[in-house]
Amino acid sequence: MTGAASRKSFGSDNHAGTHPAVMRAIVEANAGDAVAYGADPWTDRAVGEIRRQSGAQGEVYLVLNGSGANVLGLGLLLGRHEAVICAESAHINTDECGASERILGTKLLTVPAPGGKLTPDLIASRLAGRGDEHFAQPGVVAITQSTEFGTCYTLDELRAVKDFCAANGLRVFLDGARLANAAAYLGCTLADLASNADVLSFGGTKNGAMGVEAVIVMQAADAVTAPYLRKQHMQLSSKMRFLGAQFNALLADDLWLANAAHANAMAARLASGLAEVPGVEVVYPVQADAVFARLDPGHIAELQRDWIFHVWDESASIVRWMTAFDTQESDVNAFLNDIATTAGAVQV
Amino acid sequence: MTGAASRKSFGSDNHAGTHPAVMRAIVEANAGDAVAYGADPWTDRAVGEIRRQSGAQGEVYLVLNGSGANVLGLGLLLGRHEAVICAESAHINTDECGASERILGTKLLTVPAPGGKLTPDLIASRLAGRGDEHFAQPGVVAITQSTEFGTCYTLDELRAVKDFCAANGLRVFLDGARLANAAAYLGCTLADLASNADVLSFGGTKNGAMGVEAVIVMQAADAVTAPYLRKQHMQLSSKMRFLGAQFNALLADDLWLANAAHANAMAARLASGLAEVPGVEVVYPVQADAVFARLDPGHIAELQRDWIFHVWDESASIVRWMTAFDTQESDVNAFLNDIATTAGAVQV
Amino acid sequence: MTGAASRKSFGSDNHAGTHPAVMRAIVEANAGDAVAYGADPWTDRAVGEIRRQSGAQGEVYLVLNGSGANVLGLGLLLGRHEAVICAESAHINTDECGASERILGTKLLTVPAPGGKLTPDLIASRLAGRGDEHFAQPGVVAITQSTEFGTCYTLDELRAVKDFCAANGLRVFLDGARLANAAAYLGCTLADLASNADVLSFGGTKNGAMGVEAVIVMQAADAVTAPYLRKQHMQLSSKMRFLGAQFNALLADDLWLANAAHANAMAARLASGLAEVPGVEVVYPVQADAVFARLDPGHIAELQRDWIFHVWDESASIVRWMTAFDTQESDVNAFLNDIATTAGAVQV
Amino acid sequence: MTGAASRKSFGSDNHAGTHPAVMRAIVEANAGDAVAYGADPWTDRAVGEIRRQSGAQGEVYLVLNGSGANVLGLGLLLGRHEAVICAESAHINTDECGASERILGTKLLTVPAPGGKLTPDLIASRLAGRGDEHFAQPGVVAITQSTEFGTCYTLDELRAVKDFCAANGLRVFLDGARLANAAAYLGCTLADLASNADVLSFGGTKNGAMGVEAVIVMQAADAVTAPYLRKQHMQLSSKMRFLGAQFNALLADDLWLANAAHANAMAARLASGLAEVPGVEVVYPVQADAVFARLDPGHIAELQRDWIFHVWDESASIVRWMTAFDTQESDVNAFLNDIATTAGAVQV
Repeated sequence: MTGAASRKSFGSDNHAGTHPAVMRAIVEANAGDAVAYGADPWTDRAVGEIRRQSGAQGEVYLVLNGSGANVLGLGLLLGRHEAVICAESAHINTDECGASERILGTKLLTVPAPGGKLTPDLIASRLAGRGDEHFAQPGVVAITQSTEFGTCYTLDELRAVKDFCAANGLRVFLDGARLANAAAYLGCTLADLASNADVLSFGGTKNGAMGVEAVIVMQAADAVTAPYLRKQHMQLSSKMRFLGAQFNALLADDLWLANAAHANAMAARLASGLAEVPGVEVVYPVQADAVFARLDPGHIAELQRDWIFHVWDESASIVRWMTAFDTQESDVNAFLNDIATTAGAVQV
Repeated sequence: MTGAASRKSFGSDNHAGTHPAVMRAIVEANAGDAVAYGADPWTDRAVGEIRRQSGAQGEVYLVLNGSGANVLGLGLLLGRHEAVICAESAHINTDECGASERILGTKLLTVPAPGGKLTPDLIASRLAGRGDEHFAQPGVVAITQSTEFGTCYTLDELRAVKDFCAANGLRVFLDGARLANAAAYLGCTLADLASNADVLSFGGTKNGAMGVEAVIVMQAADAVTAPYLRKQHMQLSSKMRFLGAQFNALLADDLWLANAAHANAMAARLASGLAEVPGVEVVYPVQADAVFARLDPGHIAELQRDWIFHVWDESASIVRWMTAFDTQESDVNAFLNDIATTAGAVQV
Repeated sequence: MTGAASRKSFGSDNHAGTHPAVMRAIVEANAGDAVAYGADPWTDRAVGEIRRQSGAQGEVYLVLNGSGANVLGLGLLLGRHEAVICAESAHINTDECGASERILGTKLLTVPAPGGKLTPDLIASRLAGRGDEHFAQPGVVAITQSTEFGTCYTLDELRAVKDFCAANGLRVFLDGARLANAAAYLGCTLADLASNADVLSFGGTKNGAMGVEAVIVMQAADAVTAPYLRKQHMQLSSKMRFLGAQFNALLADDLWLANAAHANAMAARLASGLAEVPGVEVVYPVQADAVFARLDPGHIAELQRDWIFHVWDESASIVRWMTAFDTQESDVNAFLNDIATTAGAVQV
Repeated sequence: MTGAASRKSFGSDNHAGTHPAVMRAIVEANAGDAVAYGADPWTDRAVGEIRRQSGAQGEVYLVLNGSGANVLGLGLLLGRHEAVICAESAHINTDECGASERILGTKLLTVPAPGGKLTPDLIASRLAGRGDEHFAQPGVVAITQSTEFGTCYTLDELRAVKDFCAANGLRVFLDGARLANAAAYLGCTLADLASNADVLSFGGTKNGAMGVEAVIVMQAADAVTAPYLRKQHMQLSSKMRFLGAQFNALLADDLWLANAAHANAMAARLASGLAEVPGVEVVYPVQADAVFARLDPGHIAELQRDWIFHVWDESASIVRWMTAFDTQESDVNAFLNDIATTAGAVQV
């Protein structure tokens, strides 16, 4: 994928590099000394701006990657003995090698969630046994926005989850590795989203950063242990200025929203084009930067000869195609063209 | 510290930025797509070169910071029930907020170690109770090279520790956050050092990287669990190419050695100049990039008005002055000048 | 439940007291001093006899309760990073408050298992993602014999699980809290059952003991860490002789088998009587000491006025009725009579 | 040690059996059914009486052994990220195989403590670095009463520790495995002792029980997580009535105090007799049921031919001699006689 002739990857928004503006900010931050571990002006500015835009009364912590953000966020909200309710499809359940269990000693109480979205009813289905010492005690509900299936909770749906949780003594952690894509899709502010969580992550990496995520703690009381847990979780960066600089670039002139909107638009374009390809069925609403499609296994194999993407569910023959801030219309067109061409070929 | 007029920090080698060659490599790696999580040519090259230079028969894993490297390294070697023998002054004991205990559930069996260096006798002093279920069972000995006091084990000293450990059913983890400084001081290869450990970290960050460390697993059998632990420990980077690129720059033309040798030379120059300053006593041999000195508390206070550095031990009135790859002779001269000037002032 | 007029509990085999022979053995062990923590003749004898009867080449460890046995057993077999495959209905998943996750940091990969029994196919359904660092890595399969639903694996079924696991690099932990009931039902030896596991628990408590379980490690290599983990897991008893004495009584003259056979017979008698009660449907084969039945919610409520038992699944209106070593035929008859009487009443 | 001719063990108060009154209570509790896991009248009574005598506003939890009590007690008070300050000689540091680190992920910040007793000054010596994320953050101070060296804090000393901790945002956990011995020595009530802790254990096992300890939570707010942590820590007994019954016997007519007073008196008698034996130096004040003495290695070896006891510190040639509720004056006399006789022999 490194040669000039390479095709654009539809494998992940992680396959993209660093947005030029972010890279510029990193280079510019490389000027002389800076006190380590976050006591530098780049970090101050990034943290301050995220706090302002999110409306957090608590604090903001920069960390090194998405798993780091998720495990720290959960750790801030979980009592030592508590469990987490989440969708079966949640990244923390399926894609982090059991990090939450290993690092926090918590149990994940999973629920099959259509389109990756929890609802009050689904959450309620895991609340049996509260107050009984034999059963795992849910303390936190973890949701993902946008979800692992490229769908977005509406603000009303988020509010319903938050209200249900508040009424039932549950805290809300929001995995926002792709929060920007949701904000772009919903046309809402960071604060609109953040107000529905107790702690949330705000992803930079999939949005054009080189590697940085923010953990936003909405209430000050929940932030008391955060500096120590971040250090114990090995998420405290020494040359922190280079994390701060990345967010500074993303937040300047709403680059984060523009990047996300572009990626979303590319996914929408792809989905739109697929409507005309027989034998390819888009299986979730395309709202963020992912298209999940069902197509013939032979068709998948044919496409994978030239294009990079993941088979999401082999038994159901469903693939995931992702766009990124740097996906071009021409990339989508070329991919669509190949999909259509090979569709015809394999279906003869 | 960000203005042109700022004085060079003697606070930490972490206060320095990124070496220009490393930054260049990062920028150059930002070309098109790359598969995430390490399946990219930059990572391949870095890992391959470190394996070659270290003589590892096992594998090499890039991680995000020093605590991440230490906890992963220990985790690879420790049985689930085992404890770690280390110097009281070890970074894992004093500076990581108890990360090893929290993440690995292990106990640190500490030993007061003069100059930060363990010896077979010191290790032996913590071996009572082996085989008795009531006592913590040491399984790993953790050493640091160069040490937290800026001293270096000789190769013979390292070999003695390794041989003692091998003979006593103990594994050796070497915290090499400043391994380059030791190699430069000893005039030895990476393999000379690595051969005395079972697993070691090889630090990039303090050597001019933006933020990357390598965990080197010397024997293949010890690497089996590493990919999973790295992920669970939240040390797996998605856009890994930017970690690989950093090491590629450091390893090209032995930049890592040149950077370390320069920092060491600056520390030596500082120590040499201090010999002529009355009232300033250098308390450890200056072998790597740190000078520990005892001076009058009033003198310390006066110096801290203009210079950034840490008071290491307030009760003993000992400070730590560190150099870095980018410390200039003129920085040292200016600092020495101020030390001498203020020494005179406070001692009148 | 303590007065003479109380009805026998059908709530749990834990509601029964201590078998008189076990109590006698405890009283007799109270003679003078004994070295603590297991270096006593009662423990020696119990451990030796269990090793002999199970055919273990490894070691046997007495622990304090069922969760203690399960978590220790899993801990002996799990790599630090590994996950456990188990039935959704497994006690470790549903009834131990998340102890395995909390103490071992492991993830439970659950499978809906009809009748509580895993099969090679069900296990295989959780093996996707092996070797991929993003996914939890199953290392152990946990089965329960007899199961939480009062069913028993046949020896062939156990062997199939064991063979599949061995062929797929998985270890087998068998939760034998009610192993005696399975042995009695199958008419097999302890060794017949034990040979299908790498580590298993052998329950005393539900079989008439006051409170003791054995962890049987079949191969010596798996026992190396056991004494230390038992201590760290707070499962090492100081006055261990009183644990040893309990097993000595249960093992003498096969009291453990007699107790289990009796409890099984009482459950069978109950199930047999239920066949004639309209509106009561037994939902699992009655093989051990439990009867799961579906009946009208009003009927359940009526019965609970006089009898102690658990509603297992409120939404499905399923109850669990358990017998014990001390359940009498007259207890079953009286219960059956009330079930039939109230059945008529509620159904008018 | 099981024959009629055996000499009384001076090895541990754990070598003694179960007090006859305790055993009687256990036998009497074996009457019919009782609901499991603590919802039984024996447990109710024990818990209620301990709450009353300790003055706890919180709750009382029966657990299975001393490590279980310590780890649960610490777990109730520790924030997820916090560390424990304790004496180097603390049982949790030296004798539990690192259970606190393993189960709680906490770090023990140890202090050399003369006579095993912490003071405000000693505690203060481990408070550097509070509020700095790089350093372990002490949240709990763990003290032992009576101490591992058979000494007792006075009530004033306890109060000083408690007041210092309260003033410094630290909680107090008191390891009371031998709390009865302290109460007997000080002539104080359980409440006098308990009022100086936030959570404490109250040991039954070393006081004549078969195996039971109570965890006393002084304030209700600290008890919220206790039932769940007890279960997760595998310290919840199913046939709990047999734990409750043991405490009922100990608490009836102050048997716990009588047992402790007797053991203390036997230790005092032993110490008193030793005053006349040349070459035997008692090294700590004998206040509870232990005598620590320094004597010639050859003398130790000679005595160990006939008597069971521990060499506490081989390099210092110090032994520990413990008495128990069932140590007789004649046992002490016989032991003293042998000590004196062999003293003469080895010193010739």
